[in-house]
Amino acid sequence: MNIGVVGLGLIGGSLCKAIKAYTHHSVWGEDRDEAVLSSALEFGAIDGRLDGRALAGCDLVLSALYPADTIAYVRTHLDLFRPGCILLDVCGVKGVVCRGIREVIAGRDLVFIGGHPMAGREFSGFAVSDQDLFQGASMILTPDADLDRDVLRRVSDFILSLGFGRVINTTPEFHDRMIAYTSQLPHVIASSYVKSPNCRFQLGFTGGSFEDMSRVAKLNEGMWTELFLDNPDHLVEEIDTLVENLKEIRNAIDQRDAERLRALLAQGRVIKESLNNDNDKDR
Amino acid sequence: MNIGVVGLGLIGGSLCKAIKAYTHHSVWGEDRDEAVLSSALEFGAIDGRLDGRALAGCDLVLSALYPADTIAYVRTHLDLFRPGCILLDVCGVKGVVCRGIREVIAGRDLVFIGGHPMAGREFSGFAVSDQDLFQGASMILTPDADLDRDVLRRVSDFILSLGFGRVINTTPEFHDRMIAYTSQLPHVIASSYVKSPNCRFQLGFTGGSFEDMSRVAKLNEGMWTELFLDNPDHLVEEIDTLVENLKEIRNAIDQRDAERLRALLAQGRVIKESLNNDNDKDR
Repeated sequence: MNIGVVGLGLIGGSLCKAIKAYTHHSVWGEDRDEAVLSSALEFGAIDGRLDGRALAGCDLVLSALYPADTIAYVRTHLDLFRPGCILLDVCGVKGVVCRGIREVIAGRDLVFIGGHPMAGREFSGFAVSDQDLFQGASMILTPDADLDRDVLRRVSDFILSLGFGRVINTTPEFHDRMIAYTSQLPHVIASSYVKSPNCRFQLGFTGGSFEDMSRVAKLNEGMWTELFLDNPDHLVEEIDTLVENLKEIRNAIDQRDAERLRALLAQGRVIKESLNNDNDKDR
Repeated sequence: MNIGVVGLGLIGGSLCKAIKAYTHHSVWGEDRDEAVLSSALEFGAIDGRLDGRALAGCDLVLSALYPADTIAYVRTHLDLFRPGCILLDVCGVKGVVCRGIREVIAGRDLVFIGGHPMAGREFSGFAVSDQDLFQGASMILTPDADLDRDVLRRVSDFILSLGFGRVINTTPEFHDRMIAYTSQLPHVIASSYVKSPNCRFQLGFTGGSFEDMSRVAKLNEGMWTELFLDNPDHLVEEIDTLVENLKEIRNAIDQRDAERLRALLAQGRVIKESLNNDNDKDR
């Protein structure tokens, strides 16, 4: 089929490269940065530019833009999509975007599915995109309840053909609640962690934990500001929960309460071990 | 030379294996668990048991016990050390342990150096010890100001011969301040992070950040309780600093203040990028 990819950053670029590497589909790409488009063409990550004519020929369009840009792109290109075209958006929040796009395409012969690939890196841009970014990763889909089952199966098969390990179907609301915890909160923690006055002396005093904690502090603040503010309530709740749990340990230390401290740390260990078991079972 | 290693857990066991793998020294080991001693002998990680006679023949004794056990071991074996023996303790806090041991060995012909290998895993025990655990890692030493320079050079050379990438000399006080931030705080964060009520639903909703944040929640709560309570003031200060920085981001999100949020995230990114540059320069 003909596939359009809008936004050739880390995720969009990696989608193009994975499609070219692992399928026989044709890929048409669009990016606001001409230099990125040129290098995607030169690299062979796309077969051509996703102009109006190419868009009209696409069976599937993947949008890998920021949330607001995604809705804007669909609105401004509404008359150019081929009737029956499937539109899969892969940005990191789903409630706002799914509501926005559903409104924009109401009454049109277009099929929309929200998605979010559980893969990323602490770098952004086409230059670091990678055909194997999605190997073994989850793709979360948030299909409408009335979505044609056959369309969902075809989209899922396409996703798995790119190297994804599994497709998870859920609602936009549950996605946003979970992603606040599993992805957004770690970025908030990393960004806060490196602000200790002792951070600048870390060289030579670090093993693996420092790098783990600080890795994603190297984030794209424009994108993450938008993602956080499109999911503020879940994220604030997660930060508040974390702060409460930090304070419990802090107070046990401050009061030299060994028994309480040991119990709090044991609770965390037991939870983590139960997850590892779940993950083992899943493999 | 003859080297004694007391405590054959992850660190002590890995020290024995590295000595056997990368040097021609003889190693004598001691552990309170007879099964561990047997498996260390069987594995060839030690040449024999570090009994009183073997201890009297040791030029260097490495203690890889918990802090209080380290001081207790030195106290109860004081008359058995060979005169001039070098004692290197490698537990994770240095102020309490260095003061305690200096007191115990006062007036004796023994040379003491505090140390802390910047290497570890989220598992413990001899079974997971590894001859290559220290490859490229830092070893922090906290030598007394009046330590013989020649002894320090010999100990440093020995450490590097095990695969360590560098030896950092500092004071016990600076070590404890830094380790509260680079190692203890990440364990507090991981343990707190997994306590969100949403954690049990994480399967399929995680990329790399969740694993980074939660990895060391799988800790040995007995050991970490002791380490935290031997360094309480520095650690409480770090937790308080982190909570303040988390709350700044939390409030920017709660107030939907995009400009402020972007600035806070940019601050963290700039700090993290400056560290990466430092680390690059160092290589």
